[in-house]
Amino acid sequence: MNTIGKRLTLTTAGESHGPALVGILDGFPSQVRIDMEAVQHELDRRHPVAPGTTARREPDRVQVLSGIFEGVTTGAPIALLINNVDAHPGDYDALRDVYRPGHADYTYAAKYGVRDHRGGGRASARETALRVAAGAFALQALEQRGIHISAYTSCIGSINRPVDHPVDMTDIYSRPMRSADADTDAAMAQLVSQIAADGDSIGGIVSGRISGLCAGVGEPVYDKFQAMLASAMMSINAAKGFDYGTGFEGVDRPGSQIAAVTGGICGGITDGGDITFRVAFKPVATMMRPLECRKADGSTVTITPGGRHDACIVPRAVAVVRAMAAITTLDALLLK
Amino acid sequence: MNTIGKRLTLTTAGESHGPALVGILDGFPSQVRIDMEAVQHELDRRHPVAPGTTARREPDRVQVLSGIFEGVTTGAPIALLINNVDAHPGDYDALRDVYRPGHADYTYAAKYGVRDHRGGGRASARETALRVAAGAFALQALEQRGIHISAYTSCIGSINRPVDHPVDMTDIYSRPMRSADADTDAAMAQLVSQIAADGDSIGGIVSGRISGLCAGVGEPVYDKFQAMLASAMMSINAAKGFDYGTGFEGVDRPGSQIAAVTGGICGGITDGGDITFRVAFKPVATMMRPLECRKADGSTVTITPGGRHDACIVPRAVAVVRAMAAITTLDALLLK
Amino acid sequence: MNTIGKRLTLTTAGESHGPALVGILDGFPSQVRIDMEAVQHELDRRHPVAPGTTARREPDRVQVLSGIFEGVTTGAPIALLINNVDAHPGDYDALRDVYRPGHADYTYAAKYGVRDHRGGGRASARETALRVAAGAFALQALEQRGIHISAYTSCIGSINRPVDHPVDMTDIYSRPMRSADADTDAAMAQLVSQIAADGDSIGGIVSGRISGLCAGVGEPVYDKFQAMLASAMMSINAAKGFDYGTGFEGVDRPGSQIAAVTGGICGGITDGGDITFRVAFKPVATMMRPLECRKADGSTVTITPGGRHDACIVPRAVAVVRAMAAITTLDALLLK
Amino acid sequence: MNTIGKRLTLTTAGESHGPALVGILDGFPSQVRIDMEAVQHELDRRHPVAPGTTARREPDRVQVLSGIFEGVTTGAPIALLINNVDAHPGDYDALRDVYRPGHADYTYAAKYGVRDHRGGGRASARETALRVAAGAFALQALEQRGIHISAYTSCIGSINRPVDHPVDMTDIYSRPMRSADADTDAAMAQLVSQIAADGDSIGGIVSGRISGLCAGVGEPVYDKFQAMLASAMMSINAAKGFDYGTGFEGVDRPGSQIAAVTGGICGGITDGGDITFRVAFKPVATMMRPLECRKADGSTVTITPGGRHDACIVPRAVAVVRAMAAITTLDALLLK
Repeated sequence: MNTIGKRLTLTTAGESHGPALVGILDGFPSQVRIDMEAVQHELDRRHPVAPGTTARREPDRVQVLSGIFEGVTTGAPIALLINNVDAHPGDYDALRDVYRPGHADYTYAAKYGVRDHRGGGRASARETALRVAAGAFALQALEQRGIHISAYTSCIGSINRPVDHPVDMTDIYSRPMRSADADTDAAMAQLVSQIAADGDSIGGIVSGRISGLCAGVGEPVYDKFQAMLASAMMSINAAKGFDYGTGFEGVDRPGSQIAAVTGGICGGITDGGDITFRVAFKPVATMMRPLECRKADGSTVTITPGGRHDACIVPRAVAVVRAMAAITTLDALLLK
Repeated sequence: MNTIGKRLTLTTAGESHGPALVGILDGFPSQVRIDMEAVQHELDRRHPVAPGTTARREPDRVQVLSGIFEGVTTGAPIALLINNVDAHPGDYDALRDVYRPGHADYTYAAKYGVRDHRGGGRASARETALRVAAGAFALQALEQRGIHISAYTSCIGSINRPVDHPVDMTDIYSRPMRSADADTDAAMAQLVSQIAADGDSIGGIVSGRISGLCAGVGEPVYDKFQAMLASAMMSINAAKGFDYGTGFEGVDRPGSQIAAVTGGICGGITDGGDITFRVAFKPVATMMRPLECRKADGSTVTITPGGRHDACIVPRAVAVVRAMAAITTLDALLLK
Repeated sequence: MNTIGKRLTLTTAGESHGPALVGILDGFPSQVRIDMEAVQHELDRRHPVAPGTTARREPDRVQVLSGIFEGVTTGAPIALLINNVDAHPGDYDALRDVYRPGHADYTYAAKYGVRDHRGGGRASARETALRVAAGAFALQALEQRGIHISAYTSCIGSINRPVDHPVDMTDIYSRPMRSADADTDAAMAQLVSQIAADGDSIGGIVSGRISGLCAGVGEPVYDKFQAMLASAMMSINAAKGFDYGTGFEGVDRPGSQIAAVTGGICGGITDGGDITFRVAFKPVATMMRPLECRKADGSTVTITPGGRHDACIVPRAVAVVRAMAAITTLDALLLK
Repeated sequence: MNTIGKRLTLTTAGESHGPALVGILDGFPSQVRIDMEAVQHELDRRHPVAPGTTARREPDRVQVLSGIFEGVTTGAPIALLINNVDAHPGDYDALRDVYRPGHADYTYAAKYGVRDHRGGGRASARETALRVAAGAFALQALEQRGIHISAYTSCIGSINRPVDHPVDMTDIYSRPMRSADADTDAAMAQLVSQIAADGDSIGGIVSGRISGLCAGVGEPVYDKFQAMLASAMMSINAAKGFDYGTGFEGVDRPGSQIAAVTGGICGGITDGGDITFRVAFKPVATMMRPLECRKADGSTVTITPGGRHDACIVPRAVAVVRAMAAITTLDALLLK
């Protein structure tokens, strides 16, 4: 449903064009001093000033309504509120009975018999603002334990990060595409500009790393660390794939070369090494082109999308991937 | 821990060289007529007679101790028992204090402070026999509802199924590598024979398909159908990656070409189309070569593996992937 | 933690004297038309104008921030917000390091190492306002299915409802003590007035009834309907006991007289009859008397309670018992 | 469904007259040395040689199939198997389509559309043998941490333990009724003998105590320690009520007398004091008298019970209450 986690849980509510997003982060450890400016800063990072990203400019101010007393967590659930100040529900009236291909319009109607069609309603990626806010809390708790999580854009379309370049995370949030070096970032930005000019869209890959996590975290059979991580990543909008360690690219390399490469996990349990993983994102389904759609009554209609749409959501997804990795890691650590 | 599922749950217990494997399948619908020969048959399929597969030849007879009355499920939990008749715990005495690289030896010790070192103990893939048995029940319930699940080896090492060949599932279990056509199967078998002769190991990819599932199954935000499926697949021993629909291979194709390719799921909810997915497996870590290992006391030792080991576990994983897809699909369907 | 329920879940956050209470009701069925005035009305009922009840007069206006579209539930989570407009956190400065006997002061400190001491913080019964609001949604969904839930004060101190009087629920919310008839209500009110005048407190019993629920609801072994109901009731502040059907009073009556009295449940599963149950409440621990308390540093101090305190919380608990019964019943029904 | 617990879970399967009972205890701490004779001894205690108890004399030998290595728990799930050597499924042929009043016959049929009618099938109290076996593991883990759990029969019918008598647990398992002193035990035994001679049945109360548990265990709002305990107790066959501390009997005593009596729990969290609780049991529904029953086809039939039936199950329930208290306490402790 709308909760993720076992010992640390995040429950979210709120539609894209409703009055607000509401999240409750429960099971968070007590006595953690929280830097609220850093939480807000993390939330701001979800809005890269990149070519082909959305024109929506919510200030996205997060309010904390509980669980913190005199700057320190109390162990009580942390309630997060983000008001939707830039909601324009009327923009979507033409889509009320329309099922756009590649969107969740039809599937929500099939499941619930009713839907809030405004801007994707509950299916919108706007929900991920709460994930980033909650993840910012988890990041602080982890950093206080010496655990660091990073994520960056490693691929957009056919442009991959050169394997022999070192990853440089220091300036990642100053680079529009959230790539690991300035040259790759520029090439990716150029590609996306062109895609946007064509009214088209493009996908890519976000790569992540968890460092400093001790051995012994994760469950051995069904809640393996990689299974929890995969589930968290595949719950992100537009995610189509997850792998870790040698992943899909290791299938054609013999065991004598890579068997000892664990990706930081063995038998579902961390071994103290860095955990490296990737998440693949599809091109978004809404493009600035006429789109033939089914309607609820079986007829078809051609829609020319208005509203606000990204040509490439991958740079925006970087903060979400990092947040979900943080929530999952802290949850697994608390389960230990 | 050792349970998977929400409304339909499978809980397993049992070590590789203990007396037996025990599973409890709970939440299974009542009034489903079960063909026990088909269950046993499915379990037999986990033992391909393929080059490079293990010499262990458990008969793997499954006993059902509850939940079925006069051939029909009662809604009560189904207890499954598979005796380990071919256990040789003494084979592993030399490994008592040894942490083999790429194995779960060290991580179990780090987590629990104690471990059953015999044949991998709880970390062994032997546990998947229960998954296949439980999955056989789920497959029957699904088939009675018109839902079919298939899986086959689509890649081993550098040998991929030709994209333009039709997938032919009719004879898959007669082909040693569980590939989609006889020619590819022969090429894969030849590769694995050579790898085994080198004392090496190799990985690959299993592809799966869920057909006939209605629209509206899956949860919209955190228990998205693809998230449940990813978690189930990543819980399989040696799995390193999961994707669905256009997956990792779709990242360099523009939205105008593939945005309407849903992979059977939109916004986490099924849309009535076929769900296609892939699972990547690494080469197994135990090779027939001398292996330098750490010991619990910090010293190192060189081990030459005895016991029974596969050069490629991908053909064996096909039945496990299919079983986990069946369990996940039935669970999601019951949640609806 | 802070979530109750399996298929229908309520997660709450918020402290007694923090800025707001926040709840998320998830898994609620779609296409239920909600009368928001009735929700607010139910919330108002939690404030009986009874002798010995608190002077706090929150307007307790509930805002719904998601999950409802054009008056109808969408299946998305329902976010509830109640602002604490009457919070006086400064009233509690003297209690910062004090552990009052019979309160959760010491236990929170022992569990979390830190606590929000203001008005009981998270331990305050103020949290039950969210239960009543969420329960009001459940009551409407149940009533639309022909299921009705009632609750009333059956005992305060030594004053019990006469067994041979008929229960009259029509005017219950106009009676200050929420009793089943006017005479008993007057007697209870007189007792509580006297107790309040003495600066003392008194407990009692709330009796409940679930009518119109079909047979076949509840799980057979560990999530028996009565176990879910007991857990929900025992989670209410000051609840000390739960029974159903013949309960504690049936232990001295032979089976030949009462074995067929099921209380509406057999083997954990409803049988279609009315479910009758009772919840015992203790006298509240805060009395208007000097109270000797331990302090965090081991010293003792005598506190004379200020702030706002009930001499008897039973009338106020009636709406909470009814709400928790509604949430539990709808959850069990959705699990079916 | 058929699992109880959060961090420590017990999942059970098996029908009264099927081949075996199967349980999986998961999440049990590693490195606990287990005395298997003590486990078996605890299981034997579920069979008091008391007047009015059943003639079924299963040896009830428990086999442990996993999770223990060289006498010590490994953290892997513990599989328990108890064969039903004394099953007589044919004894129950006459009951195939009969719904006995006060039994779960009709409710199972309503829920599942099919049932195993033999000896109550899954609804039989025979399932509690697994609870006692699993509880024996939990008792050992608790005792190694200085936590002790006791339970005894405090009431049968109108015979209550005299309040001023000391509770003497040393010989409890040598007393047929499991009472706290020899005189009360004799009086209870005489009552039950007479009830049995009349072909009738009688209920009673089991009282329990948890000693040595540290402060800070239990969750503050919805998984309060008392809520977990209530749920566990109300899941026992024939249980009709639960209370703790001053419970139902404290409702007529003013706060000035009892407000500081916490029953070991404040705000849902343990305070380090002893936790005292009671569980009420109804008289069993099967009496040695002709019984008018409905049949599936709507007709009625008069049944004279054969088979094996207790006139009073309270002495037998003592070991089950103690086991469930142990499982719940260890679970809550592991959640801390």
